[in-house]
Amino acid sequence: MKLIRFGAEGAEQPGIITASGKKIDVSAFGQDYNEDFFGGDGIERLSAWLEKNEASCPEIGDDVRLGAPLTRPSKIVCVGLNYAKHAEETGAAIPEEPILFFKSTTALCGPNDEVMIPKNSEKTDWEVELAIIIGKKASYVELEDANDHIAGYALHNDISERAFQIEKGGQWCKGKGCDTFAPLGPFIATKDEVKNPNDLELWLELNGERLQHSSTNDFIFNVQEVVSYISQFMTLLPGDVISTGTPSGVGLGFNPPKYLKPGDVMELGIEGLGTSKQVCKGYSKK
Amino acid sequence: MKLIRFGAEGAEQPGIITASGKKIDVSAFGQDYNEDFFGGDGIERLSAWLEKNEASCPEIGDDVRLGAPLTRPSKIVCVGLNYAKHAEETGAAIPEEPILFFKSTTALCGPNDEVMIPKNSEKTDWEVELAIIIGKKASYVELEDANDHIAGYALHNDISERAFQIEKGGQWCKGKGCDTFAPLGPFIATKDEVKNPNDLELWLELNGERLQHSSTNDFIFNVQEVVSYISQFMTLLPGDVISTGTPSGVGLGFNPPKYLKPGDVMELGIEGLGTSKQVCKGYSKK
Repeated sequence: MKLIRFGAEGAEQPGIITASGKKIDVSAFGQDYNEDFFGGDGIERLSAWLEKNEASCPEIGDDVRLGAPLTRPSKIVCVGLNYAKHAEETGAAIPEEPILFFKSTTALCGPNDEVMIPKNSEKTDWEVELAIIIGKKASYVELEDANDHIAGYALHNDISERAFQIEKGGQWCKGKGCDTFAPLGPFIATKDEVKNPNDLELWLELNGERLQHSSTNDFIFNVQEVVSYISQFMTLLPGDVISTGTPSGVGLGFNPPKYLKPGDVMELGIEGLGTSKQVCKGYSKK
Repeated sequence: MKLIRFGAEGAEQPGIITASGKKIDVSAFGQDYNEDFFGGDGIERLSAWLEKNEASCPEIGDDVRLGAPLTRPSKIVCVGLNYAKHAEETGAAIPEEPILFFKSTTALCGPNDEVMIPKNSEKTDWEVELAIIIGKKASYVELEDANDHIAGYALHNDISERAFQIEKGGQWCKGKGCDTFAPLGPFIATKDEVKNPNDLELWLELNGERLQHSSTNDFIFNVQEVVSYISQFMTLLPGDVISTGTPSGVGLGFNPPKYLKPGDVMELGIEGLGTSKQVCKGYSKK
């Protein structure tokens, strides 16, 4: 199943993309894609509900905005430097354990929303990533049980401001949590749809030029290792998002570095997880 | 006003501590202390409601557990090394800009709950801190407007596992977000109750020995500076928690370092914000 959310920002409703590729409104199911949904067998319940009700669900027009395909999670945990080649381009050693950081959940936005380059930013950068969506509470999970705690997967652009991240002292979070820095989706593919999350092609184009192109088979730590590892340090709740790191080809890695400016267009995709497209805009006070 | 939440973990109800020191149940007000409460003039509305209804609110017994005094926030942003003397004891230079990190929101617990020393932990440490509770959405807030965005203040113990934080590669979040690592409360004092948050005595005792004792007048970056600064990098939502750093006297700073073990008792307090007490226990799978 492919879960989407649609409608105006802050007023999104749940929907799905059907087997035939139609987007339909499933708000009549009565539950949004939140912690209770993922933790309470929501995928199975929705699937059963659709068998009876799919035909009567309204279709969603292609002009309707997509939101992030889940409600605000308790956390977005990210893995840094998780592709061998990306570690190389940033000049970092291959990490012995996964490097973890948090992204602010207020950074979440729809897959095709505009990305706002923050005030005083000169080094806003892209990062195509495979995101894992947690389906079952995960605390001290063994590697062989990790799959049981996964609900599905989604495409994520882990936008990053490199000066905020690296040049302002201390931790990375200043450059990772700005508003609109986490376009997620277009959809969550439930895990039954993804044959092997550790072997998916992914790519990102800036203004039509392909700058990132790799496969998750270049992971230093794979999906199951990452879930198990994080769960040793904190409890992952249903609906939590884990972003698994980005391959080589980010702006920081070029010589000289390339950074985003208003009007730039990012298009990205992961095999089986669809594509997204974000246009950059300059800072404006909401 | 002093806001509390009481009852079993996960089933807390809102209450207040009255001017005469009585704890009363205000669940009849009909709203928990969440984002909508803080962002929707909840403090003013509750205050008006209490004028009519306080006398009929049931009293809460002293044997009833207190929970964290707000529902799960969108984020807990922490400031590192924000007291001149604590920066000194950890051997760090005085930061030129606030050092920020996130604490997992799943770390939140009640002020007097047991603190669980994580599996494989040998370096669990304490940090008494003043927490700021955001009252109004804050994005790019000017210093002179920062107070308008604050709802109140609370006592926080920013429990930290130093090996997870520092010795496992990368960012601090592995050692900051473990379950029960954020005992908050006993209460949120609304800001009208706190004359000057930048001049409050605070202390922490381990097994009766006073190890931290300072005043927020030793802040490198004060409450208003911290709120304004963070809001340049991310939007703070009503109900979000900012923890402002800890003074000298943490376990890491001793020679040799002192760390927590099962049975240890932490008692801490901040002038005007009450006290809390946590007993440490060893890891046990829930």
